[in-house]
This record gives sequence, structure tokens and C-alpha cells, in this order.
Amino acid sequence: MSISTKPASGFRDFLPKDVRRRQFVFNTIERVYESFGFERLDTPCVERLDTLLGKYGEEGDQLVFKILQRGDKLQRALQAEEVKDTDLADAGLRYDLTVPLARVYAQYRNDLPRFFKRYQIAPVWRADRPQKGRYREFFQCDVDVVGSSSMTVEAEVTAALATILKELRFNDVRIHVNHRKVLLALMQVSGIPESQESDALIAIDKLDKVGRDGVIAELTTRGIADSAVTKLMAVLEGCPGPGQPGFSNEAMLAHLQQSLSASEEGEAAVSDLSDLLEYAAGGAAASLICLDPYLARGLSYYTGPIFEIRSDDFAGSLGGGGRYDGLIGMFMKGDVPACGFSLGVERILVLMEERGLFNDDETHVDVMLMLWDKETTASTMALAAELRSQGLRVDVYPDHDKYSKQFKYAESRNIPVVVMMGADESAANEVTVKNLTTGTQVSVPRNQAALTIRELSSPG
Amino acid sequence: MSISTKPASGFRDFLPKDVRRRQFVFNTIERVYESFGFERLDTPCVERLDTLLGKYGEEGDQLVFKILQRGDKLQRALQAEEVKDTDLADAGLRYDLTVPLARVYAQYRNDLPRFFKRYQIAPVWRADRPQKGRYREFFQCDVDVVGSSSMTVEAEVTAALATILKELRFNDVRIHVNHRKVLLALMQVSGIPESQESDALIAIDKLDKVGRDGVIAELTTRGIADSAVTKLMAVLEGCPGPGQPGFSNEAMLAHLQQSLSASEEGEAAVSDLSDLLEYAAGGAAASLICLDPYLARGLSYYTGPIFEIRSDDFAGSLGGGGRYDGLIGMFMKGDVPACGFSLGVERILVLMEERGLFNDDETHVDVMLMLWDKETTASTMALAAELRSQGLRVDVYPDHDKYSKQFKYAESRNIPVVVMMGADESAANEVTVKNLTTGTQVSVPRNQAALTIRELSSPG
Repeated sequence: MSISTKPASGFRDFLPKDVRRRQFVFNTIERVYESFGFERLDTPCVERLDTLLGKYGEEGDQLVFKILQRGDKLQRALQAEEVKDTDLADAGLRYDLTVPLARVYAQYRNDLPRFFKRYQIAPVWRADRPQKGRYREFFQCDVDVVGSSSMTVEAEVTAALATILKELRFNDVRIHVNHRKVLLALMQVSGIPESQESDALIAIDKLDKVGRDGVIAELTTRGIADSAVTKLMAVLEGCPGPGQPGFSNEAMLAHLQQSLSASEEGEAAVSDLSDLLEYAAGGAAASLICLDPYLARGLSYYTGPIFEIRSDDFAGSLGGGGRYDGLIGMFMKGDVPACGFSLGVERILVLMEERGLFNDDETHVDVMLMLWDKETTASTMALAAELRSQGLRVDVYPDHDKYSKQFKYAESRNIPVVVMMGADESAANEVTVKNLTTGTQVSVPRNQAALTIRELSSPG
Repeated sequence: MSISTKPASGFRDFLPKDVRRRQFVFNTIERVYESFGFERLDTPCVERLDTLLGKYGEEGDQLVFKILQRGDKLQRALQAEEVKDTDLADAGLRYDLTVPLARVYAQYRNDLPRFFKRYQIAPVWRADRPQKGRYREFFQCDVDVVGSSSMTVEAEVTAALATILKELRFNDVRIHVNHRKVLLALMQVSGIPESQESDALIAIDKLDKVGRDGVIAELTTRGIADSAVTKLMAVLEGCPGPGQPGFSNEAMLAHLQQSLSASEEGEAAVSDLSDLLEYAAGGAAASLICLDPYLARGLSYYTGPIFEIRSDDFAGSLGGGGRYDGLIGMFMKGDVPACGFSLGVERILVLMEERGLFNDDETHVDVMLMLWDKETTASTMALAAELRSQGLRVDVYPDHDKYSKQFKYAESRNIPVVVMMGADESAANEVTVKNLTTGTQVSVPRNQAALTIRELSSPG
């Protein structure tokens, strides 16, 4: 056979061991989000092309996987003088989870709670060139609150994130927090004109990649006037930043309040950040939040606080988010306040694997019943039913092979305990339970099987 | 805005209430399969086109959603003299979960256990014309055992199905069982030539739609000789069938043994079915299994026992399966024994909804904390963190609205209990806990909040 049995390029198979690792992380995230009152939303993998296109910039549009028309529609499209890919397709695979959320909110808002707190953990698709660690199908893990402008939302979202990170044993991370309006005020007080804002933001966002001198060089290269650079850096460096000696959120907040008081945006931002710190103080995020005036994040749609999870122990971030009061409005009239976060779950999985944080030894089958011969098979299978009804996860070896082969199989599957029920045991209405690690083996009356399996399973 | 906010035609959004119903069913299925030692496999939604095409017949190939090429490859394909859809695409959305299983088994068989017991609950896509109850994206729920020819496998698969059906409260169903070789033997002893086998099988499979006279008419229309029809019906009607007075598996087995003894296939089939009944006797499937010589199922790839879940209370089936010892070999040399079942999970969801089997009242948030004013907000949010660490699912109302509005919101979300922590309570280090259904309201010291919430939540 010449057919390849590999998955398509950029796609992955997850064998049971991989699935268990991924599910462990997904389940942890779901459980925490649900403990914060978030509810799960599921949207289709396929969206109309006019839902997807025009939302991610030209580069993003190119990366949308489009689904080929069929039958007459395809024939008609092919007969056009100039065939365009948007005529050959009218649907595509979703590119992220934010556009579907905005569409769903616009479509069903009358059926949704006034405050819509949803999470979604689901695959998205991008036609990027596949490379190490970059796939064409990968999971995103989004949480958003739609409907409130209160900073309690930011406090809750960051608290949920901090709880997840703690449960997954990321003990060395910070949640960097800035505010879109801090950035705007910074531009204003430095005298950087609106036309140069995005250039300046790109430059200062690079601090952790290029350092402070690199930022200054980048600002100058991008044509920011020297006087503006000097003023900007004076504010940015006027107070120790995250990770620097002497850093504190209180000091940073006071510094920003003083430095940005000439700007209306600055005052609004400082008020929001002050509320956020106040509301977050008693929760899990309090010790992780760091005000960071350098944090810019690329996306221009943020309108309020912005977040990013970082650590000194790895490059890049574990996800980011913020308040985007205009974005939901892309599918409906009027702005709707919203704040969300996208956790970099694929990155988290890679780091957890590198750090050996997965407990792969955890058993997924409690006991395997061995088969002796055809005559005793029915009663072995009946025992399997009894044990399952008592809450045990039970595998039954399917064939009448030699015991040595059956033992080997159980070991290869990491099954800790096996049960033998041969002719002798059957005659005596007994079972023999054996722990394959310790070698301990006992024969007990059949009705004590579950108890004995549990006893022999527990370590020590 | 003129952009539609509906999902693409044939696709569905699942709001949180729908998700809860679907997850309840999926979780039940997963839990049962895992208690039988099955492990979860995840494969990509997108497969290479040469993996998909040629596996589902010409009609099936037409229904595969193909993904448009991009960039140069697309341009080259469009410049061909005759543009074919298979040149415009090199990947597609998976059409079922069986072909991916076969591909995965061929690719990773050396890393997989000798007996590979996997389940997969995942969406598949078919470019069918959308209509009521038929969608272009729907979930399949497959379980398969690869690697053993023993009838213990059939016994385990049917026992798992029976357990799932019981847990989902389908108390009125039967698992119809037949054997591919029973059907072949029936043809042989009736004198129906091989060339007419598939015609004859299509006819007898229609019993529950057209009745016995309809089956005879269909056989005659399809050109089966009268003498063969007479012989065939004599065997089929020689023993009461499932649902008829006097039916028993033992009687049916004895009847088949006698009627088909002239055929080698018949003897092999009767031996298999006898083993299957023997092994299943002590488990959950014993009371549901009905030997049914009419059951044919369309797919020609079955080689052994075949199953279908049916009921007198609804038309059609809740899924089907069987043994297909040749199918895995489509991606590798040599046959691999395998047996599987695809549970009709979308059908199950519709029936459960029609029958009111979902418990939508089940709460998904244990308590909502109300907000009094800005000053008390931080301590309310700290309380939320404490309650969550004690295992409660806690929502915090985000805005400083009037209490009446907050009560209304909690009711709209079916949240049973709320906590108030106004200025008076805060001063006294107390909280007021209120059950919104009964109106019961008590003030307790703050450190007793979790206990009191649990007390006021429990019914009665």
C-alpha cells in the first residue's frame, strides 16, 4: 500500500497517553472557570466566510482555511472569467474563538444572561507554514465576560487565571497588567502625535526582547522625536518595573498617577487600575499582578486594562487578554462592554511536558481480569460486571492465552492489579488477586474481590 | 450591519444550556467506556484527501468537505485545462471516525497495546443537504477493539452499550444481534446465488419498515426466484423473532443451528453467537440482546456478528456496529481482527429531549455574591475566593446595581442562593445568606458562610 498513514502536514494525532495529558489540563481549566461561574459555549468548527473574513487583517484572511464549493456552485465559480478563491468557497474553518463569540452574542443576546460569562476550549485552524511547535490545528482556551464595565470583571478574570496557574503548578509566573489608556496618556504627555502612536507602542512593547537601549534605538529609528523619546523614557523609567528591585504595584500606581495627571485618559486609566488592584487584593491574582507600563500587546482593539502572563523562566507569554468594549459590536449596532483572556494552552502543555509536571503513572484501569479457559469465561465476565457496578475500572483480557502472556500485557498497560479465576478458584468460588508491582498475591472469596483489589492497589 | 449572525447552513451553535445536556450524555458515555478499560483517542478534524477518498463509495466521496488549496498551488490548479475538485484541494474534513482509527492503527501499531480498545466522541462533517434533524456537523461516538477475534470482545462491547443505555434511562431498547455468516448461510441454504446476495439482504433488512409481505414482494421484485424466497422465508419465519410471542435467544439459536447446519458459514456463525450469548449472560447486555436473522445492516465490510440498537418506541436505530476483520487492513498489509460500535449520540440527544429526560434544573452555580457598594467590594471578592477554595462554585454580581436588580439576575440564572454583605454586615463581620426559592434568610458570622450556603442549598 502506498497511501501515507501520517496525519496531514501540520496536524497531530493524540494517542491515549497524549489525550490524558491534554484532558488533565483542559479539565483543570474547565473546573476552575466553572467555579467562577463561567459557562461553556460550543460553536461550529465551520463558519460562513463572510463571518470570518475582514476580521483578522489581510494577513489573517490569507490564513483562513476555506472550504471548497460543491456541485453546480463550484462549476459556476470555475466558469467565471477570473476565478477568485472567495468564489470557490463560501465557508471556512474558524480562525479564533473571539469572532464566533461576537457572532453568537449578536445572534442570541436576548436569550443570554445580562452578564454572559463564557469559556470555550476548542480547536482553531490557521494555514500557517507548519514548523516545530506550530500547528495548523491547535486549541485555544478563551474566557470572556460580556456586559459589564466594572473592574470586578478584570479582578475575577485574573483571579481565575491565577488559580489555574497555581493548580497546574506554574509557581513562577506574573500577570503583567497595563491599560490602553495609560499608553495613550504616555503618548500625550510625551508629545508623540497620534500618527506615531502605533510605531511608539511597537517599540516599547519590545522591552523584554531588546532591553531599554534597544527600545530607545527602535523609537528613534521609527522617527519619534528625541525630545519625545526622552520624556517617554523618563516616565517609563521613573519607577522600578516588574522584576526590578523596589518594584511595587502601589509605587507604580502612584508614579503613573503623578506622571499622567495632565491627561484625561491617564486619570481614567489610573482609576481603573486602582479599582482592579483593590478588588483583586483578597484573591489568587493579588500576588501575581504587576503593573507594567511597557506592556502594549499588538491588538489595537483593546480599550481598557490589558494582561499578559509571563515568567523569567521562559520566553514569550502563556496568554494574554484585556478589555475590548468595541469588538462585540462588529456584528451588531452599539458597543458592548467585554473583557476576556486567551490562555496559551498549547504552550502550557509543552512547558508542563518539559518540566515533567505530568503524572503519567496514574492508573486508568484499576484491575485486569485474566482468562483461564472457555468454561470459566462467562463467570469471569460476570465478575467484571459486578466489579464495575462497585465503581472499579475493569479490563478483561480477551483471549485464552497463557498466563505469562496475560501478565506481560497487563504490565505493558501499567495495570497494577490482576485477578485470576481458574478452574480451582471457580470450584471454590474464590478469586486470586495479585499486585504486579509487589508480587503480593492472595486468594479470597469471590464476594470480597472488590475490597481486596482496592487493598492491593493502594501503595504501601 | 448586513452580515448574518446565524451559523452557516447545516451548522449549530450550542449555548451553555445545550452544552450541559450534550456534556451530560458525552460524560456518561465516556465514564462507562473507561470503566470497561477503553481509552480515548483524538485525531485531527482535517485529513489528507487521499486518506478520505475511496473509502465511502462514490456517494460518500461527494459528501466529503474539501479544503481549498492556497497560493501557488491553487493558481497552478486553476490553470489546468480541466479543473478538477481534487486538484483544488488536498485535504478534507473527516467523514467518520473509523477511517482515522484505521490510519492511526496502521501508523502507530508498534506503540499501541496488543489489544487496542479506544473510544472517540467527536464531530464529523458531511456535505449533505441540511434538513430537519440532519446537520453537516454532527458528533459520532465510536468504540472499537482492535486485535482480538474472541467473542469476549462482542460481549464486552454490548455490555458497555447496555450500561450506557441504562444510565441514560433508555429502558425500552433491544440490542438486535445477527451474524454476517448467518446471512451468507441463509443465502446458501435457500439457493440464492452470490450475485443476488446483496439484493436479498437489502430486502430482508426492511422487515421493520415494510413487514413480512413487503419483504417477500421486495425479494420478488429484485428477481429472487420464488422457490428461493419460499425457502428463505421458511427459515426466517421458522422461529418467533424479537418482539414476537415465544421469542427466546435459545430457541432462535437452536433453530438457526438446525436450519443452517448444511453450511460451513452457518456452523461458524452459530458457534460465535453461542459464545457471545454465553459470555454476555452475566452482564448488562444479557436482557437486551435479541438474535434477529433479519438484521442485515448495509455495510458490506462486516465479517462476524453485527448489532443494532432498536426499540418499539421509536423508528430507526440508536446505532449499530459489528465485527469487521478486514477494515483496518485498508491502510496496511494483512487483516487485523476488530469489532466496534457507533452509538447514535445525536439521535439519543433528540430522544432524551423529547422524553424530558434532562434535568435542566441542576444548578451550575452554587451561590451568587451580591455587591453593595464600592467600599465593601474588595471584601466581597475576598469572600468569593474563600468560598471557592472550600469547593463552592461562586458567581459575583459585577456591578453596583440595586439589590432588586441583582435578585432578578440571580433568579434568571437559576442560582439558588445569594449572599449579601452590605455595610452593616461588613461592620459586624457577618454575611446574610438567602435562599431565593424559599425566601429563607439568615445572618451568620462570615467564617460560617460556606456551611450556611450548603445548608440553605439542600432541598427540604
